Amino acid sequence: MLRKVLYPGSFDPPTLGHLDIIERASRLGERLVVGIGINSEKSGWFSVEERLEMLRACTAHLPNVEIAAFEGLLIHFAQQKGCSVMVRGMRAVTDFDYEFRIAMANRTLAPEIETVFLLARDEYSFLASSIVREVARLGGDVTAFVPPAVAESIARRTV
Amino acid sequence: MLRKVLYPGSFDPPTLGHLDIIERASRLGERLVVGIGINSEKSGWFSVEERLEMLRACTAHLPNVEIAAFEGLLIHFAQQKGCSVMVRGMRAVTDFDYEFRIAMANRTLAPEIETVFLLARDEYSFLASSIVREVARLGGDVTAFVPPAVAESIARRTV
Amino acid sequence: MLRKVLYPGSFDPPTLGHLDIIERASRLGERLVVGIGINSEKSGWFSVEERLEMLRACTAHLPNVEIAAFEGLLIHFAQQKGCSVMVRGMRAVTDFDYEFRIAMANRTLAPEIETVFLLARDEYSFLASSIVREVARLGGDVTAFVPPAVAESIARRTV
Amino acid sequence: MLRKVLYPGSFDPPTLGHLDIIERASRLGERLVVGIGINSEKSGWFSVEERLEMLRACTAHLPNVEIAAFEGLLIHFAQQKGCSVMVRGMRAVTDFDYEFRIAMANRTLAPEIETVFLLARDEYSFLASSIVREVARLGGDVTAFVPPAVAESIARRTV
Amino acid sequence: MLRKVLYPGSFDPPTLGHLDIIERASRLGERLVVGIGINSEKSGWFSVEERLEMLRACTAHLPNVEIAAFEGLLIHFAQQKGCSVMVRGMRAVTDFDYEFRIAMANRTLAPEIETVFLLARDEYSFLASSIVREVARLGGDVTAFVPPAVAESIARRTV
Amino acid sequence: MLRKVLYPGSFDPPTLGHLDIIERASRLGERLVVGIGINSEKSGWFSVEERLEMLRACTAHLPNVEIAAFEGLLIHFAQQKGCSVMVRGMRAVTDFDYEFRIAMANRTLAPEIETVFLLARDEYSFLASSIVREVARLGGDVTAFVPPAVAESIARRTV
Repeated sequence: MLRKVLYPGSFDPPTLGHLDIIERASRLGERLVVGIGINSEKSGWFSVEERLEMLRACTAHLPNVEIAAFEGLLIHFAQQKGCSVMVRGMRAVTDFDYEFRIAMANRTLAPEIETVFLLARDEYSFLASSIVREVARLGGDVTAFVPPAVAESIARRTV
Repeated sequence: MLRKVLYPGSFDPPTLGHLDIIERASRLGERLVVGIGINSEKSGWFSVEERLEMLRACTAHLPNVEIAAFEGLLIHFAQQKGCSVMVRGMRAVTDFDYEFRIAMANRTLAPEIETVFLLARDEYSFLASSIVREVARLGGDVTAFVPPAVAESIARRTV
Repeated sequence: MLRKVLYPGSFDPPTLGHLDIIERASRLGERLVVGIGINSEKSGWFSVEERLEMLRACTAHLPNVEIAAFEGLLIHFAQQKGCSVMVRGMRAVTDFDYEFRIAMANRTLAPEIETVFLLARDEYSFLASSIVREVARLGGDVTAFVPPAVAESIARRTV
Repeated sequence: MLRKVLYPGSFDPPTLGHLDIIERASRLGERLVVGIGINSEKSGWFSVEERLEMLRACTAHLPNVEIAAFEGLLIHFAQQKGCSVMVRGMRAVTDFDYEFRIAMANRTLAPEIETVFLLARDEYSFLASSIVREVARLGGDVTAFVPPAVAESIARRTV
Repeated sequence: MLRKVLYPGSFDPPTLGHLDIIERASRLGERLVVGIGINSEKSGWFSVEERLEMLRACTAHLPNVEIAAFEGLLIHFAQQKGCSVMVRGMRAVTDFDYEFRIAMANRTLAPEIETVFLLARDEYSFLASSIVREVARLGGDVTAFVPPAVAESIARRTV
Repeated sequence: MLRKVLYPGSFDPPTLGHLDIIERASRLGERLVVGIGINSEKSGWFSVEERLEMLRACTAHLPNVEIAAFEGLLIHFAQQKGCSVMVRGMRAVTDFDYEFRIAMANRTLAPEIETVFLLARDEYSFLASSIVREVARLGGDVTAFVPPAVAESIARRTV
């Protein structure tokens, strides 16, 4: 039985917290798909192509990880990729509530897909892409928050 | 003593969770007013008229329920309708915090109106109008989330 | 239609927070039963008789309030008293979780009984019988926490 | 790569919520060990032998599930059984905090073991062994809360 | 050793809750800086100049309090003002999560600055500038929520 | 103006999380009193004398820190020691609720004493004395959780 795992997100940009979850999730199944959700109504900080590239650079050392982008419902993407397990990172109690609702809606729509939660590593428990964007926008140093490849991309765009 | 109860919300669109609260709230007093709050600064997904109509269709079996729309402060509407009790549904812990603040602000403004909370039925604890809109927008099936009359309206608008 | 409301608790001892909920709950229905749950496995700080007496003294001004003690399941007591609504006070987020579980278990056992929640008045949001017992045990002044009749009972027992 | 999963707990008694997690966790790896933690300082409601028997009866239909009891540290048991993944059920926000602390302490002690969380199915989100014991002790009906084999064991002991 | 304390916020507008924190924070160090964060991407309800003026009027009785506005990263402003302690007000559990993340991000960026939290006074625990704006916008009375000087400014702008 | 700060707790045993708060709290005022609350109704794991000794050993490098034990109400001890500020560590959302209640009860009893909260350092956010006791009791290694002097005391008692 081949088990494929999906880790969905916006990754705008990817953080060290995302990378930690990717490494741990890659050990939960035979194969891990990292899925970048495209929101056609909201343009991101980085383009989808830039996010694909940054994630590929950060995960080059993980042979069973594949990066892909998707539009539409998350569960449709999971079904199309043949993923039976979805991984979500959880950092704090407000995450819990939000994630709980999403997981329950998804379970109603696609009961065959299981959602599992990994707790963020303690030193990344505060990290969110929005904090990285905010610190970068205000001229702060983000190297403690993102992988080197992402730090370079951020440096280029804020020059 | 005639006790009138108010259940306010946006109902954009009404969900099975809303309908469950309406049915239970209609047994708490002699009469229940379901109040659709109009936000003049933000146009909704459905118009106020469509929401009035959908709610009337869903509650036709409840003789002591009245549907109405209002602008301005919720407590002014409660006072004008003669409602001494307001009902709010609560689903999760982040609801709790938000609802707590609203209830306390309302208590400061109108101490004579009591706010009571009903817990969402477990199978609807994740349901929010925003999830229905999101699933519909992405082409998913919403029939497990809304009353039949609402599902038809959604089908018409997303054709 | 006569609506009877039940407000259950341990009331060991009754606090100003309990009294506030009693006054507000007494306006939600025709009649309010305040039910003291007897735990046969744990002896209380005050005896059940003392708690009955203190609650009767504190609620003498509320003609539609009845004080009673009960053993066994809460919902059996509600059914026996003919109460269709149960009132619970909620103070904080940990209350929320606990109360949510109790309410859902009760709903499974007795779907015809509705549980409604009232938020503790802000100045009593920290108050719990356990805090009153602790402050009294350590020699502190509890007059800001309990009705006068209860303060006298506490003074007598800690002499 | 053979992946063994551990689902630890007290199971005093096993509930329908536990059984749901067991069924879902059994699909996350090649093999699932359900581990009953023995607390040498506190005697349970059911003996460890009774809990082993009840869990074996409830999981007879799941060929890759093994029931075992253990003393001492959970992570030592996981290491001894060769389990690289631990599963925990999560029901509510207070669970989250407690589970978070346990998971972080375990990660410090045994970084090679991953803890994953499954959300309780909505209709079991209130269920805890303590509620089952309480309802049974007070003479209530527990058949909506536990598998038939457990309901029989409870009926025998409360006769 | 001169200890300077920073209390940052948007103060759009200042509320009685802010004023309470300012008074208490002014006693935690030799000197308190109240810092109005300027968001260059979002225009406020009141201009930064109006907020400076309102805060100065409200704190005229506190000789060791200074009001200032800042752009850019909060910790850069703290370092430039020589503040070793930052004060944040906390009202509720969702504040907790948000504040926790901000505090941890700031600690990573500037470990020498300590963040301390004060709990909102109970009667202001629901108060937020957004509630004041909402009530004012809908024609409600805000005098129970803000200092007199702020109520006057609001009255002038909503005429 | 000499500002004295009090950090109260059970410290049974002191953890690295406690030590971190002590070091940070010692910089908030001229002098820090670490107060060990004696519970006359419950004997601890370590005696009060052992806890005094362990805390003195761990804080020998902090010249402005004094260790003391107290019986009775915390605020009476604060008043007797002349402390105008109390420090509490906060780790998670359930701490928040508990601490909130204690802080509000103390404010009612002694409005002149301010309670400030410090967030636990991320790597200690799960640490509690109870976890240390549990791990030690089950034969696990506690050296990652407590200062060396405490690890030695634990090793001696569990031989």
